[in-house]
Amino acid sequence: MTTVRELAQAARAASRVLANLNTESRNQLLRAIADRLRARGSAVLQANAEDMRQGAERGLSPAMLDRLYLDPKRLAALADAVDAIAAQPDPIGQESSVQVRADGLRLARMRVPLGVIAMIYESRPNVTIDAAALCLKSGNAAILRGGSEAWYSNQALATMVQSVLSDLGLPEACVQRLPSSERSEMLELLQCAGLIDLVIPRGGEGLIRFVAANSRIPVVQHYKGVCHLFVDRDANQVTATRLLLDGKASRPGVCNALETLLVDQAIAETWLPGAAAALLARGVELRGCARTQALISAVVPAEDSDWDAEYLAPILAIRMVDDLDAALAHIALHGSQHTEVIVTDNAERAARFQREVDASAVMWNASSRFNDGGELGLGAEIGISTTKIHAYGAMGALSLTTEKWLVSGSGHVRHPDLLKP
Amino acid sequence: MTTVRELAQAARAASRVLANLNTESRNQLLRAIADRLRARGSAVLQANAEDMRQGAERGLSPAMLDRLYLDPKRLAALADAVDAIAAQPDPIGQESSVQVRADGLRLARMRVPLGVIAMIYESRPNVTIDAAALCLKSGNAAILRGGSEAWYSNQALATMVQSVLSDLGLPEACVQRLPSSERSEMLELLQCAGLIDLVIPRGGEGLIRFVAANSRIPVVQHYKGVCHLFVDRDANQVTATRLLLDGKASRPGVCNALETLLVDQAIAETWLPGAAAALLARGVELRGCARTQALISAVVPAEDSDWDAEYLAPILAIRMVDDLDAALAHIALHGSQHTEVIVTDNAERAARFQREVDASAVMWNASSRFNDGGELGLGAEIGISTTKIHAYGAMGALSLTTEKWLVSGSGHVRHPDLLKP
Repeated sequence: MTTVRELAQAARAASRVLANLNTESRNQLLRAIADRLRARGSAVLQANAEDMRQGAERGLSPAMLDRLYLDPKRLAALADAVDAIAAQPDPIGQESSVQVRADGLRLARMRVPLGVIAMIYESRPNVTIDAAALCLKSGNAAILRGGSEAWYSNQALATMVQSVLSDLGLPEACVQRLPSSERSEMLELLQCAGLIDLVIPRGGEGLIRFVAANSRIPVVQHYKGVCHLFVDRDANQVTATRLLLDGKASRPGVCNALETLLVDQAIAETWLPGAAAALLARGVELRGCARTQALISAVVPAEDSDWDAEYLAPILAIRMVDDLDAALAHIALHGSQHTEVIVTDNAERAARFQREVDASAVMWNASSRFNDGGELGLGAEIGISTTKIHAYGAMGALSLTTEKWLVSGSGHVRHPDLLKP
Repeated sequence: MTTVRELAQAARAASRVLANLNTESRNQLLRAIADRLRARGSAVLQANAEDMRQGAERGLSPAMLDRLYLDPKRLAALADAVDAIAAQPDPIGQESSVQVRADGLRLARMRVPLGVIAMIYESRPNVTIDAAALCLKSGNAAILRGGSEAWYSNQALATMVQSVLSDLGLPEACVQRLPSSERSEMLELLQCAGLIDLVIPRGGEGLIRFVAANSRIPVVQHYKGVCHLFVDRDANQVTATRLLLDGKASRPGVCNALETLLVDQAIAETWLPGAAAALLARGVELRGCARTQALISAVVPAEDSDWDAEYLAPILAIRMVDDLDAALAHIALHGSQHTEVIVTDNAERAARFQREVDASAVMWNASSRFNDGGELGLGAEIGISTTKIHAYGAMGALSLTTEKWLVSGSGHVRHPDLLKP
């Protein structure tokens, strides 16, 4: 049986093959994967039905089962996403930033793959395809470790990708899965520094902290999104309500959903009661500060922990603040560097908010839900980084690359005097 | 006494002040540091004399003492480097990659500081100033942990920087040193995840491995440079000798010096004897493969370990290879992703070498010694990364930044249907 280390070594060797494939070969590979998903989806759906059956037996929550579930429509969307990634510009191989120094030495940058990416994730089987497609697009080999609850679906999807690789004469080790979902195998994987270049965990905070604490390989971390909407005194009130409902009520279980509303006290009395009523009508529980409670009787008292909570549920924390400065201070203390929003018609305060708030995406009069690789034009995303090292925010294929220097001369040296005999 | 954690917390608070300083304020700060270095250099030189005295007593090698040594000329060069950093374009604050979607949503990127950088280094006191200047330029707070052998010099330099900060009404915590050179303090520092964004170790391999193994904070690693010069069959022989001497004999103790020469067998007989004689005349010891020894009697046999050695000394390993493919295979196995060089007049083979070799800088008819932040136009450098995460190769001020998204709309939402009452 293949050990985890042997698997990583095979990935390393395959990554050299991938790095030297030309643009068209990599795009052709992606289109073939999309076609295979369309032609042979039934095997995937059968495997998924088994995961769903076992998941129901194990008592997975409806939200979990929904994330796990695949049907022909979701498979078709997955295939379309792979085709869309194929159609994007090639992130690697081009020269950029070309400069010629006064002495004739030519400097350029060339974008290159990272090498081998290990992706560790939970539940959603579509990550298997999204991650494989983004890695292949950017010339990287992928090692995938999905959650046990999606075991059969992930197996069927990865096997399908490997069959396409094999048909095109490419190493199957370009995309591999760990042999089992044992934690010990993940730990072995995290020790393979030198063979794997980057680990990307995607899932609950517990998983991410476990990976970060145990990895000898660099990790790009995707922590929680405690996203704030700040309604400034000069907000357009209709816009404020639109963004509040879209951010809180359209899909509360995702990381770019709103968790806390900050309202400038100068606008609270005229705007907040109507906005709160709209939320309550959509089944959202409201937890607020004393000033908010004084204004709206349906608001229950917020505890200190509410200001740091990522509910991922139809619950909203509400705090009335004195002004923009107080909002900035609250976000600096409680924000999670994910997504923050200001609603205002005052361009100066908006500019200050966008400049000073430290978050991977800062919105002005736009919903927090736009912090998403697809919406930002990256095609699929491999995750949203909430730390600033290597990538900040939504990671697409470009985030799986780096640049090397190309230096070209005609015998240029730094110490010509040394050459005198 | 301040604990390491308190120091990191102070750095975090100071980083927010720095991030919001405008371009001119940060450049003014740098120019003031340069001026202070020129005006009050004698205090630094006195401190340095004490380090030199203790270093001589402790039996430091001449190379170590040379790295430690400061004189008025070196101090002046340091001040000039700070002024040069001040004169560079501002790496942060500008918007770039602006796009407006069909629906009017405006997307842009803004380059921002990382936050707090911990720099862990050995011997050379100039790193104290280079690192402080690059961090301040890019709006980051710095925590510096230099080696014990440069204790007094680093203290004098950091105190001088803090006095300038204080004179300009800025927090002294923008640039701090650890209270002592105890290893336990460094370990405490490496646990301050959430307060420190990036750790950059610079020095011997042992130090770097220790930091990487013990850090809970992302680390950009700077490992050894096992740099190769490949002389292709179509090389200009004069160019080949120039690059060989510059790469091996101009400064053997630095990471971008050559360690191994690979010679295409088709050119070896005509070129290698003369090149070897030039190296021997400059005191370089030659260790070669059997074919090299057969050609040049002064070559001693190379052991297996020679192909992975970073000598940092006047020693060169030489291997004759069949062709470009054999050279690429040797470099893939023994290269350190630092700097690799091809000498050839064949543009096609040069392009293949530059494309396929995985190194932070790949040279064609140019010396390996050009892999240097100054030579590549970055001003000073904070190190040369040999891993691809976050930065690859020479790191200047830009490598201490990242980008956030700015998204601006006029009430844009993803689910407008949700807004119907």
